[in-house]
Amino acid sequence: MVFAKAAIVGVGLIGGSFALGLKEKKLCGRVVGAGRSAANLKVAMDLGAIDAAEADAGAAVKGADLVLIAAPVAQFEKIFLAIQPVLAPECLVMDAGSTKRDVVAAARRGLGGRVGQFVPAHPIAGAEKSGAAAADAGLFRGRRLVLTPLKENKEKDVQTVADLWVALGARVSRMTPEEHDGVFAAVSHLPHLLAYALVNDISTRADAAQLFGYAGGGFRDFTRIASSHPEMWRDICTANNDQLLQELARYSAELARIGELLQTRDAPALEKLFTDARAARQRWLDGDYE
Amino acid sequence: MVFAKAAIVGVGLIGGSFALGLKEKKLCGRVVGAGRSAANLKVAMDLGAIDAAEADAGAAVKGADLVLIAAPVAQFEKIFLAIQPVLAPECLVMDAGSTKRDVVAAARRGLGGRVGQFVPAHPIAGAEKSGAAAADAGLFRGRRLVLTPLKENKEKDVQTVADLWVALGARVSRMTPEEHDGVFAAVSHLPHLLAYALVNDISTRADAAQLFGYAGGGFRDFTRIASSHPEMWRDICTANNDQLLQELARYSAELARIGELLQTRDAPALEKLFTDARAARQRWLDGDYE
Repeated sequence: MVFAKAAIVGVGLIGGSFALGLKEKKLCGRVVGAGRSAANLKVAMDLGAIDAAEADAGAAVKGADLVLIAAPVAQFEKIFLAIQPVLAPECLVMDAGSTKRDVVAAARRGLGGRVGQFVPAHPIAGAEKSGAAAADAGLFRGRRLVLTPLKENKEKDVQTVADLWVALGARVSRMTPEEHDGVFAAVSHLPHLLAYALVNDISTRADAAQLFGYAGGGFRDFTRIASSHPEMWRDICTANNDQLLQELARYSAELARIGELLQTRDAPALEKLFTDARAARQRWLDGDYE
Repeated sequence: MVFAKAAIVGVGLIGGSFALGLKEKKLCGRVVGAGRSAANLKVAMDLGAIDAAEADAGAAVKGADLVLIAAPVAQFEKIFLAIQPVLAPECLVMDAGSTKRDVVAAARRGLGGRVGQFVPAHPIAGAEKSGAAAADAGLFRGRRLVLTPLKENKEKDVQTVADLWVALGARVSRMTPEEHDGVFAAVSHLPHLLAYALVNDISTRADAAQLFGYAGGGFRDFTRIASSHPEMWRDICTANNDQLLQELARYSAELARIGELLQTRDAPALEKLFTDARAARQRWLDGDYE
């Protein structure tokens, strides 16, 4: 499992960390990056994540035996279309997209008969930092990686992708794209939306300065994910809007229920809710759900 | 500003940290703790936060020239009633309650004509840890402390309380109780409720184990405050329910607006919202609102 040339399309936090990991583990000869920002590609070069940079995904992918697409998901179709004509028949294509139904659909449209070369995957390693400057070879250590294989994939290719991520320290599991998008709508996409909503709710008020002035450590941690990459989250929200709307409706109903407890000052019910939530979170922290 | 005997009623994270701070700064001769849990008082003794423990607040306060009430706010009236008969005329009474209108009302009912001895205050130093075991003399360093003085207070007493907290490293400011409860409903009470609600929303589902299994670092930080003390938060929510309901209504309207953006897949509006929120949070992190 050593590759001659890897092409990383989108050398941000995830793409850059993957590239650094490949190099650290000596899994690849040459790594070429492609992306929209020349400044970001220069940072990736300076960090040693990539050996060369191309503005065009097709040019980067030419001659590659491994491709990672790690761009915001709305760009995927254009990228698949750009790489399809130059894709070597034995080249393995992976991605790091945060949504999977739309990515798979884009791959079918963009790669056509070559779609079997594409093994969809999602490393759960987001952070509020973005860009190549934040890249870290150890980013995936202990993190989950979800594969959502296609019926057209060869099992040996799926296994190679799994082995690659395991080599970088990830814990690999498999789901269908539908299942993936449902799970992450609940545990990732919704919380991001809620954090962005809270910061927006505060920052648009006349007394925003006073309010922020008294916001403490709880607010800081609650809203950390509201510092996430806006374009990436725009794309996730539009790609997974149906599942996210379901989660939002469910959560809004929960808030309405809690509003009734506040209205009636139902202290025992509030205490039970808080006690149950704290206990569930503690079980999670204790690893009971691993 | 050195006290002969301080009584700490409620020797948890805040009360215990205050006691340790008093001792570290040599601001007090003897510190006596009172509380409902003998086990917790023993922890506080073992840590050296208190020199003696009493089950009864009245017994602890007898002969004290400084009192800090650091219990969940629903207990305040009972505590004021218990200490009122033994309170020395020159004894200064402070609190650390997270809500202020209800605390002031409880002080008026419980202390009667002695209410002028009570200077209400709120140190903004919550954490998801609780109990004396989590106490830390440095907890208040760099943190805010809000005073909400009464018209009955002597200015020199208010200044002494301010000086005490400044000595422990806090940044002191003043507000009215109404203003305080409005500000903290927005930046503290609402986020706590939202975090508890999310954990509860996930943990009560049939597929909770799978969902928690894929929850990552963003979820962990977003929900950190859902590990806060349930009784304390029950009391805050019932005491400040009117302001909190206003905040909840405002936030729910914001979520409904975002739901429409998802429904119509309004990518530019979503990106603008996320970009604005990230920028506002960054200004806050940069200290522009200090």
